[in-house]
Amino acid sequence: MNSINSLFEKHRSTLDSALKALSNRTYYTAYPESPKSYQEDGDSKARVWIGSILNQDFKSLHQTEESEWNGVEISPFLQTGIGVKYPVFTVDALINKAEQAQKIWSKTSVEVRAGILIEALEKISNRFFDIAHATMHTTGQGYMMAFQASGPHANDRALEAVAMGYQELTRFPQNVEWIKNLGKFDLKINKDWNIIPKGIGLVIGCSTFPTWNTVPGLFATLITGNACIVKPHSKVILPIAIVVEEIQNTLNENGFDTNTVQLAVGSEKIQITKQLCEHKSVKMIDYTGNSEFGNYIETLPKTTFTEKAGVNSIILDSVVDLKSVLGNIAFSASLYSGQMCTAPQNIFVSEKGVNTNDGIVSFDEVSNGLADAITSLVDNPKAGAPTLGAIQAEATYKRVQEAKNLGGKLILDTKAIKNEEFEHARIATPVVIVLDKSQKEIYNNECFGPIVFVIKTEGIDDSIQQAKYLANEKGALTCGAYTTDENTKQKIKEEMNSVYVPVSFNFTGAGFINSHAAFSDFHLTGANPAGNASFTNSEFVAKRFVLVGNRYM
Amino acid sequence: MNSINSLFEKHRSTLDSALKALSNRTYYTAYPESPKSYQEDGDSKARVWIGSILNQDFKSLHQTEESEWNGVEISPFLQTGIGVKYPVFTVDALINKAEQAQKIWSKTSVEVRAGILIEALEKISNRFFDIAHATMHTTGQGYMMAFQASGPHANDRALEAVAMGYQELTRFPQNVEWIKNLGKFDLKINKDWNIIPKGIGLVIGCSTFPTWNTVPGLFATLITGNACIVKPHSKVILPIAIVVEEIQNTLNENGFDTNTVQLAVGSEKIQITKQLCEHKSVKMIDYTGNSEFGNYIETLPKTTFTEKAGVNSIILDSVVDLKSVLGNIAFSASLYSGQMCTAPQNIFVSEKGVNTNDGIVSFDEVSNGLADAITSLVDNPKAGAPTLGAIQAEATYKRVQEAKNLGGKLILDTKAIKNEEFEHARIATPVVIVLDKSQKEIYNNECFGPIVFVIKTEGIDDSIQQAKYLANEKGALTCGAYTTDENTKQKIKEEMNSVYVPVSFNFTGAGFINSHAAFSDFHLTGANPAGNASFTNSEFVAKRFVLVGNRYM
Repeated sequence: MNSINSLFEKHRSTLDSALKALSNRTYYTAYPESPKSYQEDGDSKARVWIGSILNQDFKSLHQTEESEWNGVEISPFLQTGIGVKYPVFTVDALINKAEQAQKIWSKTSVEVRAGILIEALEKISNRFFDIAHATMHTTGQGYMMAFQASGPHANDRALEAVAMGYQELTRFPQNVEWIKNLGKFDLKINKDWNIIPKGIGLVIGCSTFPTWNTVPGLFATLITGNACIVKPHSKVILPIAIVVEEIQNTLNENGFDTNTVQLAVGSEKIQITKQLCEHKSVKMIDYTGNSEFGNYIETLPKTTFTEKAGVNSIILDSVVDLKSVLGNIAFSASLYSGQMCTAPQNIFVSEKGVNTNDGIVSFDEVSNGLADAITSLVDNPKAGAPTLGAIQAEATYKRVQEAKNLGGKLILDTKAIKNEEFEHARIATPVVIVLDKSQKEIYNNECFGPIVFVIKTEGIDDSIQQAKYLANEKGALTCGAYTTDENTKQKIKEEMNSVYVPVSFNFTGAGFINSHAAFSDFHLTGANPAGNASFTNSEFVAKRFVLVGNRYM
Repeated sequence: MNSINSLFEKHRSTLDSALKALSNRTYYTAYPESPKSYQEDGDSKARVWIGSILNQDFKSLHQTEESEWNGVEISPFLQTGIGVKYPVFTVDALINKAEQAQKIWSKTSVEVRAGILIEALEKISNRFFDIAHATMHTTGQGYMMAFQASGPHANDRALEAVAMGYQELTRFPQNVEWIKNLGKFDLKINKDWNIIPKGIGLVIGCSTFPTWNTVPGLFATLITGNACIVKPHSKVILPIAIVVEEIQNTLNENGFDTNTVQLAVGSEKIQITKQLCEHKSVKMIDYTGNSEFGNYIETLPKTTFTEKAGVNSIILDSVVDLKSVLGNIAFSASLYSGQMCTAPQNIFVSEKGVNTNDGIVSFDEVSNGLADAITSLVDNPKAGAPTLGAIQAEATYKRVQEAKNLGGKLILDTKAIKNEEFEHARIATPVVIVLDKSQKEIYNNECFGPIVFVIKTEGIDDSIQQAKYLANEKGALTCGAYTTDENTKQKIKEEMNSVYVPVSFNFTGAGFINSHAAFSDFHLTGANPAGNASFTNSEFVAKRFVLVGNRYM
């Protein structure tokens, strides 16, 4: 017990810094994003580790009595199966263990829970290099993104959820003496308030950001006293398996039930996802993935937190320097081959062209300029391959190859470029297609992957209306806008915000619309069809527990 | 504009006190509950006013172009129609006006909104006596309860919602300069966060607490920048009509669109409730009423806040002084003839009887003692009629008359007592029926009105399990428990809290399980079948707006 309380003390300054950052929303990180900030031999050791785990059973989880072992992950860089197998459990086994674990965990103090979870994040940070390689060989992310997104950025998001949880859980006093004067005497009532967790949480991961999109729900579930079952995408398990392993190690070292968090992997024989979703003991579901399954989850009579598909727009009106703008958009669209939920798909440009400091640039020059900027990025031997990474899924690869047949005017087709390290990598550079605004049936859908539409509109107002309509109908996570006109800026802000889409204005240089920083940017607003959750607002944790007050005379 | 900002300054200390009370949860009121704290001639003026409004059109609303006038309220004290008619509008008319009003209100600062709403509460407090008489002659509440519940207690709940809204709305900075050091240079991004209200709110009132149950949702909707449509129960309009009138007066005086809040009354020709619920522009619904309609509302793809039916239990294990305990329960069950959502219905007592300081009292003595306590209360000429008030609905009256046929052993039947002021009052004293725990089909349902079951169980553990099962299956808003044993107390607390029901222990004297105090007690937990909302936790306001962040380079 001493050692557990000392964990809270050990991590108190981290928690305090996180709480401060959460409130003032200025820049903060507890986990620096540069690999240089970590173990010098971390990467070389991780390369040895990933080699050693290939074609092996993943035995480091604290989960026993499995029904079988299964694993179907394929490295997008090698295009061969990685052969790692994970223990498979039946839904009943998972639920029973979670229910047992919940009994203790739900009665553990907020301070102890916070100490354990931040300690777990520290252990996870010691595995950042392993997680990076695991992420590369499941999602296809390039090395630097794999390191940053699955490592420090994910850990910061997890810490943010812990801090927000801590803040909400300690918002009200645990007990008070309530005294009401009734004239001749005082009515005295002692009151206490008890945090009653909602019940088992299920977190369903996606195939592109296996830790970044999973840990907010996972840590929010845990800090609020609930046991958590983590169901990764069947093709992308290894990165989050390491995260679960390190949380379990922390629980184990401190005498808690390691089943407080469980990795749930199915098999052809044991299908688990829908059964878990519909199990009466599962009270909360966090989900990242396609809209069809997300919509199903939202209809369940449970507390749900979803991130589904969206179509992100860029409104290109007027700029100072067009070249730097097109370079910035080219990078945003190429980064991880457009497989980010925050990647831009639709670029709305007026048929009258774009105002720049050097005069008006015509629509055709702008669209061709974007195609050129992409070509110049992907053909740059130092930048192309690391930026693109590889295509995670065969279906995405096929969609990109066939994009030329979508309609409109193809001005840049996809091609393969060489990856020096992985000659068999599944690579597809972005496609650029010019459309007229009337071709809605083409651009009014998420075309997941490196597919960019430049859409000709009647003018800025039309561009705004198209982007707004789309966000309202299909959802959007982000919107980029370029304008040098203050009134236009206000109009874009007002119209896009009215459909609950945040706008990034005039991003160039090192600012990219794709990135949402923990402790400052909310990821999703939770109020358009792209999802019902927001990382990390107060609702994201408050809905996971209930305050129940008792009164004593 | 000056006068509006000065409203915020005028009410700043009230807001600050409310914010402080909200956080520390000690006793606080901004509106004292004694009529003596208000205008000396308030009551006599109100009697004149209520006489003058009978059989008249209610013309003091700022709502024009009505389709017709309608009103079907019947006074439970007079058992005649009060004849007040209200303007009737079509759903389209209501929505169009709300949408217009929302445009301005949603862009009004939080401070201005808070100032106007607290000013409106002050205006409402000048009408407490009118509201009291209006409440009596629609709900059947006795005078003191009508004054307190519809007046000061309701206003405190409204202020609580305003304060909680203010707290959540100002929780994060409106803008920051975010600076991330990237080694050779700083990445600087300016950010702002914008409060985007969810959209038009609909608040559906109930027939028993027309203002107390309506104003939390109404004021939470307004403080978060949304226009609100108030749809009262068709039989209980007058009290909330006064509230709407005074909010509209305040809006009008300060140059705001009075349709920011509208009273919505239907007619036989113009049915509005479901149409309003299902209208795409209505984004939020607050509802108090029966479970069937509440369950329908919860299935709508909207943000909903419901308070439905529940069955409240008392677990009677051991006491110091049985007489004071039975007197307390008798009052709780008789107050407003058991028509409170927090009234106790099921009293679980062990077949072995109840331990007291004077030894064990048998089950039969306890149940008969409760019947005697009720008889002694209702037969007391000074206490009986004021405590009971009148029965709001004919259906409730019939249910009580027929309760003797429910089954079990009738130990106290209902009867009429005399109300000195209103000889035609619809009065029914509580029925007490003894049941065996096996007679679940009788007691496992809400029997709304003054019907009390004393249920014989096998012992304390059995009593707890019956109460817990019932709360989990049917919902409960409150639970009373009497025990002198510390272990039993812990067990009751743990078991009932686990199904999200608050427990009031050993209430005697002036403490009653029925009352939930603003700023201290949460009303409902929102996590059992009695409803999904909780007055007033952070979710109750946070779900009514969305924070949207923009970034600028």
